[in-house]
Parts: sequence; C-alpha cells; structure tokens
Amino acid sequence: MTSLAEMAKQPGSWLDGSGPHSDIVLSTRVRLARNLQSVPFPTRAKAEQLAQMLPSVVAAAKKSSAFAEMAVLRSAEMTQQDKQFLVERHLISHDFAENSKVGALIIGTDESVSIMVNEEDHLRLQVLCSGRQLGKAVKLADKVDDELDASLEYAFSDELGYLTSCPTNVGTGLRASVLMHFPALVLTKQIGKVLQGITQVGLGVRGFYGEGTEIIGNFFQVSNQTTLGLSENEAAMSLERVVNQVMEYESKAMEAALRDAKVQIEDKVWRAFGALRYCKILPSRELVSLVSLVRFGVSLGLSGLCAIGALNELLVLSQPAHMQKRAGRDLTAAERNVMRAELVRERLWRR
Amino acid sequence: MTSLAEMAKQPGSWLDGSGPHSDIVLSTRVRLARNLQSVPFPTRAKAEQLAQMLPSVVAAAKKSSAFAEMAVLRSAEMTQQDKQFLVERHLISHDFAENSKVGALIIGTDESVSIMVNEEDHLRLQVLCSGRQLGKAVKLADKVDDELDASLEYAFSDELGYLTSCPTNVGTGLRASVLMHFPALVLTKQIGKVLQGITQVGLGVRGFYGEGTEIIGNFFQVSNQTTLGLSENEAAMSLERVVNQVMEYESKAMEAALRDAKVQIEDKVWRAFGALRYCKILPSRELVSLVSLVRFGVSLGLSGLCAIGALNELLVLSQPAHMQKRAGRDLTAAERNVMRAELVRERLWRR
Repeated sequence: MTSLAEMAKQPGSWLDGSGPHSDIVLSTRVRLARNLQSVPFPTRAKAEQLAQMLPSVVAAAKKSSAFAEMAVLRSAEMTQQDKQFLVERHLISHDFAENSKVGALIIGTDESVSIMVNEEDHLRLQVLCSGRQLGKAVKLADKVDDELDASLEYAFSDELGYLTSCPTNVGTGLRASVLMHFPALVLTKQIGKVLQGITQVGLGVRGFYGEGTEIIGNFFQVSNQTTLGLSENEAAMSLERVVNQVMEYESKAMEAALRDAKVQIEDKVWRAFGALRYCKILPSRELVSLVSLVRFGVSLGLSGLCAIGALNELLVLSQPAHMQKRAGRDLTAAERNVMRAELVRERLWRR
Repeated sequence: MTSLAEMAKQPGSWLDGSGPHSDIVLSTRVRLARNLQSVPFPTRAKAEQLAQMLPSVVAAAKKSSAFAEMAVLRSAEMTQQDKQFLVERHLISHDFAENSKVGALIIGTDESVSIMVNEEDHLRLQVLCSGRQLGKAVKLADKVDDELDASLEYAFSDELGYLTSCPTNVGTGLRASVLMHFPALVLTKQIGKVLQGITQVGLGVRGFYGEGTEIIGNFFQVSNQTTLGLSENEAAMSLERVVNQVMEYESKAMEAALRDAKVQIEDKVWRAFGALRYCKILPSRELVSLVSLVRFGVSLGLSGLCAIGALNELLVLSQPAHMQKRAGRDLTAAERNVMRAELVRERLWRR
C-alpha cells in the first residue's frame, strides 16, 4: 500500500470511466453495515472495547483476496488533513472524520474494497465500481462479507437480519448508491420532476460530495433507503431499475438538446474545455461546473475533447486535501486555486 | 486591385502590427480635406457638377506613385453591403455610406492611401500607417497632396489656408488620429482622468469604430481638433507629444498591474485566449473584449499567445460586412456569430 501522498496522484480505479454506461454513471457504491455480537455497539461501547476489536477485524480481512494488498489507518494516527483526504476519496464519512477516536480504515486492493471500523457500526464494508455495476458490486460485497463472517461473529437476528446502531440500517445493512451525471435533464429543466419521482419511489438523492452536500455540476448520487424486507440483491435490483429508467430519460433529453440547440451546446462545452485548458486560477466550484459541461460534450459524442475518466479524476484530485497532499504542505485557498489550474492543465493537455 | 471579396480576407497592412509601438498603438491616420476652386463645394453643388469632377481627380491621382495600383469605386455602383464593408475598413465615412450619390472612393496601393471624393469636401485624402507614425503619415499625405495639387486647383486662401465645407476644417484641413489600446489604464481605473486630460488639451477621443461610436474593448481613437493657426506638421507633433505621454501612463499602469495582480491578469488573458480558440458562437462585442484581453497579455510580454497583428486583424475581419463578403452572401446575426467563431479559430490555431 502506498502513502496518502502517493494516492493523491491518482484516484481509485472506480472513477476511471471504464465501467458500463460510464457516459452517464460515474460509479456504483455498495456498503454493508455489520456489528460484532461480542462487543457493545459503538454508540454504547467503551473506547477500550472498540480499540481491542480492531485486530480481529484486520485478521479476518487478511483472509479475503480483496485485501491481498492492505493498509490499516487508525483514526488516532490521522492528521486533520489525512481525514479530509480520505473523505474526499469517499473512503471515510464526514462523521468518522469528525468524531472517530478509536476508529480505523482498512483499505483493500485498489481502494475498491474497504472497511471503516468503529464509525456508527463496528464495520462498514464498502465496495466501489466504475460505471453502473450494481449486480457486480453487491456480489463482491457479499463475497467479502461471507469471508469476514467466517472469522467474525456478526450480530444477527433471524427475524430482523443484521443488527445495526441505527434502525434504518437493520435488515440487510445494505446501502447501494449510484453516482450519475444528468446535464441534459438539468438543461431541459426536467430534472425537478425526475428527482421528485426518485424520492417518491423511496430512493434518496444527494450531491457528489456525499450526505448533506448540495448538488453542483449536475452530479447526483441516488441510493436505496430500505434495508428491511428485501434481500441485498432485491434492493440493488430495485435501485438499478430506477437508474435505468433515469438513464433513459437523460438519453432522451440529450437527443432533444442536440436537436434544438446543437451549436449553443457545442459552444458552451468547448468554451468550458478552453477555460479548463487555459485558466491560471480555478476555484473548485467552477472546476466542477466546467468538468460537468465537458463531460456533457463527451457524452454527446463531440469528438476532440478528452476521456471521461480524465474528467472524473479531476473531480477527486482537485479537492483541497488532495492538492495539499500532492504539494506536501498546507495551502491557502488562493494557492489551491492556482495549483488546481495547473493540475487541470497538466491533465488536459496530456495526449 | 482585387475585389472586395478578396479584400475581405485580409485587412490593409496598416493593422499588421509591424509599426513602431504596436503594442499600444494600433495605427495612425491622417486625412486632408481639400476642395477644387472651380466647382461649388459638395454642400451646394449640383449632382452633375460633382459627377463631372471625378475624372480630373482620378487623372491627378494616377500621377502619384501612391496610386500605382488603383481602384475607383463609385457610390452609385456600391451595394449597401459594399458601403458597410468600406466603412468597416476605415476607407469611407458613415456619412458617405449613408448619403453619397455622386461620390467615389479611390483606393491606392495596399489601402494605405485613399481619396474619398465628394463627401463633405471634394477630396478627403487619407493615409493609414501601422503603429505610431505621425511624422511619416503627415509626410506621405503632404507628398501625395503636392502631387495632386500639381494637377488640381485647390480652393485656398492666403489668409485662412485651405477652404473647406465645414469651418472646423479650414486651415490645414488636417485631421490626424491615433488608434490606441489602454487596457492597463482601464484596469487601474486611471482612464477617466487620462481622457479628461486629453480633451482638456483640445484633442478628441472616440471609439474604435469611428465618430459617434462607443468605446469598447479599451480601444481609443485620439485626434487633433485644431486646423487653424498651426502647420500640418505642428498639429501632428502636438498630437504626438500627447500620445507619447499617454503611452507612458499606460506602460506605468502595466507595470503596476503586473506587480499587484500578475496571476489574476494572466488568468483573465489566458481564459480570453481559450475562449477565442474554442468558442463556436462569438458575438462581435465579445470578440472585441476578448481580443482586447489577449492583446493586453501580448503587450505585457506573456509568451505563447499570438502576434499582435493577428489580433488587430480580427477586429476588422470579424465585422458584419467583412463576414458576408467572405461568405459571398447575406448572413443573419446568428450565422455571423457562428462564422465569426470559425474565423477566429482559423486564425488563432495557425502557427
């Protein structure tokens, strides 16, 4: 496992744009909430009890091929910047970053599998995949879960399923989410209706940067909310059906946009590309908006732009802690804006 | 002499950025108002009298080396688009374009010398030079004026000098103007004071597109207003002194801008360059603003942009009648905006 500074140079492969439907779906995430029967849940346990638990989880993970390469990072040893970095990387939660004292993060090969230890639950197993791959992500999560289960004794009720700190997770403990990009639905002003429909069928919608973050750059995270009464696979497939439906709406909106305003869209897309390639100061919000526009152009099939993966990566690499890890020092907001522009130029002039 | 459509591909060499101080001064213009003694002035003459006069002016011009290549365009034979084109080209006035029925334009080699016949005066001899070249322009105008004077009998009073339709031109009949670019004075908010100073010493200030046009893109035309009591050369040198002074202010403002906000300026300049290189729709006002910014960058010595001449040329070539001449047909404003973006891309990706 490499250092965080090394990690900061490249995001995990789940954002590389290689997965199916990567033009609309950036990535798929599945997480399972699990607790050990022998230890009080984190909300009630004493710090020593939680701290003592980590070695058994690490030992269990070592038996899984998903953790052939492994890094264990203890929250007590993390700096504030490390925590922010791991949040930006989608490897720990805001809650973990702010409150964890005896927590740890176990990162598996290529960051596609990881375990957050002692956040709200003892274990939060996470799987990340490129593109729309709900079936594969659930399958991989289940496999690793089984491997861990062989060494650990989970808190489980025959009636309710897996027991968790928060009742909303009881049952499967599964939360599946898909990170999508809907520029055409936003442009054609249909997004409000679509988001309303998504929440009406019991799914949740958030921004790119996770819970409580606003939606910028037309990026949306859609996730299931129900963990009781459905199998892991049923929950994932129910989410996938909605995702497919919305992808179809987005495709139709793209066609309509191209039919009604092709040159106007091309103008906006190429100007955004020009701004990314030439700017010398780039605030992070503007980066997200510009990347969204160029991503839209690539999805529309405009040629001569850049790879989807390069754009996805910029969303992660341009974040504050990533920039500071790369620089090897703290940076002011003004310094970051200059360095962000450099990063983008470096990536977008590459051939 | 080539056709107007051929001319539309390239402006006259007076905008090629080759002249002295081209970083701040785009061009120098000198015009002499002259009338023939034997014919009533255009404001009073009958159309036949004016029409009959043209051959003698053409014959006189033929004897000047400045008209070795010559084109004679009669206003009666000009289309509306031709007139607009010649206005854009700084070869005829708005007044001539709108009102001339028996006028003509005689264009000499490379458009640097021309004669507008039967506008407000019988002859308006014009000389255009690249950069700040008042002395040279006055000298050339005087030389051609002498050559014409050898064949034509000018209305001249020993007491007043050359007689003209409008009393403001009586005397030398000379109007000298210098087209300048003051982005740093505008940026540092000193321009108001400078323009006030210019008008206080009796000079006039107008926008790039001539009399009555507003100032856009930080381009300013400064001209003398006095034609009585000074020789041609004195008037020109008095203008040059002011021009030199203002150039110095602009240089100082550039230094201050670079000292106080280098990266912010670089960001603006390079973004403008990116927008010009990548846009697919480009309204004319925006072109002027973007060209102004890039021109500022070149003046500041930022490397990797483009030649000053290429930017000057865009200001002329991107105008409506120029675009239509190139296209060989009338264009809607929307079509022009698309074609303007194409023109700019074609010029700015050239190496």
